[in-house]
Amino acid sequence: MPEPFRTTRLVEFHDTDMAGIMHFASFLVYMESAEHELYRSLGMSIHSIVEDEHISFPRVSASCEFFSPARCEDVLDIAVGVTRIGNKSVSYEFRFAHAGRDVAQGQITAVCCRVRPGQPPESRPIPAEIKEKLRAYLVT
Amino acid sequence: MPEPFRTTRLVEFHDTDMAGIMHFASFLVYMESAEHELYRSLGMSIHSIVEDEHISFPRVSASCEFFSPARCEDVLDIAVGVTRIGNKSVSYEFRFAHAGRDVAQGQITAVCCRVRPGQPPESRPIPAEIKEKLRAYLVT
Amino acid sequence: MPEPFRTTRLVEFHDTDMAGIMHFASFLVYMESAEHELYRSLGMSIHSIVEDEHISFPRVSASCEFFSPARCEDVLDIAVGVTRIGNKSVSYEFRFAHAGRDVAQGQITAVCCRVRPGQPPESRPIPAEIKEKLRAYLVT
Amino acid sequence: MPEPFRTTRLVEFHDTDMAGIMHFASFLVYMESAEHELYRSLGMSIHSIVEDEHISFPRVSASCEFFSPARCEDVLDIAVGVTRIGNKSVSYEFRFAHAGRDVAQGQITAVCCRVRPGQPPESRPIPAEIKEKLRAYLVT
Repeated sequence: MPEPFRTTRLVEFHDTDMAGIMHFASFLVYMESAEHELYRSLGMSIHSIVEDEHISFPRVSASCEFFSPARCEDVLDIAVGVTRIGNKSVSYEFRFAHAGRDVAQGQITAVCCRVRPGQPPESRPIPAEIKEKLRAYLVT
Repeated sequence: MPEPFRTTRLVEFHDTDMAGIMHFASFLVYMESAEHELYRSLGMSIHSIVEDEHISFPRVSASCEFFSPARCEDVLDIAVGVTRIGNKSVSYEFRFAHAGRDVAQGQITAVCCRVRPGQPPESRPIPAEIKEKLRAYLVT
Repeated sequence: MPEPFRTTRLVEFHDTDMAGIMHFASFLVYMESAEHELYRSLGMSIHSIVEDEHISFPRVSASCEFFSPARCEDVLDIAVGVTRIGNKSVSYEFRFAHAGRDVAQGQITAVCCRVRPGQPPESRPIPAEIKEKLRAYLVT
Repeated sequence: MPEPFRTTRLVEFHDTDMAGIMHFASFLVYMESAEHELYRSLGMSIHSIVEDEHISFPRVSASCEFFSPARCEDVLDIAVGVTRIGNKSVSYEFRFAHAGRDVAQGQITAVCCRVRPGQPPESRPIPAEIKEKLRAYLVT
């Protein structure tokens, strides 16, 4: 059965706020960076050229629940599962933990788009090759 | 019937990314800043001292849906409604629009905590005075 | 004698760090935003099209000295002077103060470039029209 | 002869801007994170307790020169040298390169302070133990 992609990230000083903990918006940045690391682990980049088209994945939704604070220099364990691969969109789940303690859990849904200079992104089916690779981390 | 708090914000260059649009995590930052502006409009600050206790509002959840891109120097219209005032927590809804076009819609739920140096935040009932003021923007 | 461009900016929560003060890198962001506001005050945008070329101003250097801390919700007074208008580059000086107290002082030098998709920026003379307008804030 | 501390960092998507390159203010964030990594490599943390005092290092100045753009997913080579250890302050130099190409070079000067809740930071001599350790990366 597929397992989520796993990585770690040290909480940096500039991501903390005056409450002494990691700022909540930085979790979305860490989620995106983990997603991109998942892509690289599959031999892909977040900006690929498929069938002569520039492909990108703008977000349609993102959310996060916060269970306990993350502090500067904490090394967070991050597990990324692909929760749904649709025709044009893909969803991810992110679980953050520190030393066995649940810290946060988030979701991102992104839609596959062709990108052309000076034009708005236009949705298109996810290329079969990308779909196939993402299945490596499809959790249920 | 109460109306949401309304403000505007110009999309800054550093909040854009290489896709040429405002980065999705920056919407959470703009949401928080609008929330704090709502507080100031009510004569409050985000960090208050009530009954000799430092009060703060850590987030328990945040989410955002993205409908259309925001670009550099776009002036976003932001409407903030208080959607629920509980005993210890408060929820907000944020609607972003640009020139009449829906851009994004988000939610934040925060929990009232007493904050003491060197100790983790501890939840406590929202002070009656804060509850009363927040009702000014309670939407249903 | 020309006066600097003057604006204000409230220090936002996400720009603070666990030391309880505005993070030093955020001063560069506030400097850039004040620079762009100066441009808009002159009827210009930071990304203009001149003689059919996309013009942009990448930075070649930036620096800041920090005199005293800025705290959350402090309203900073920012004065921006144009200190040098060269053939291809322009330099600015930024002075931050709060309630009459010096907070920080910084510099940015940017070089005028033509920007074309898929190509690195290429330096070019500053268009005469932009040079002329910037002189409004040339301090000596 | 002492060598600088060396690390690497991948340029993340959220650190790019609409010009398609890493935003200039993010270099200061990367500089600080490399400084903190240098501290950890010496068995220290950026926030230490020495002689019962909380010690921190607020910045008094920071600067950066930009030679060539850094792009998303570029892995930057970062060399950090300690350029001066004074009685109360320490200075660092940072050199960024990508695939042998110079990208940027920066400096930070920080001052040793005792930090107490609710009081402004107060400068104090750098503890002998920290001074001694920093000498490992003192370049001339």
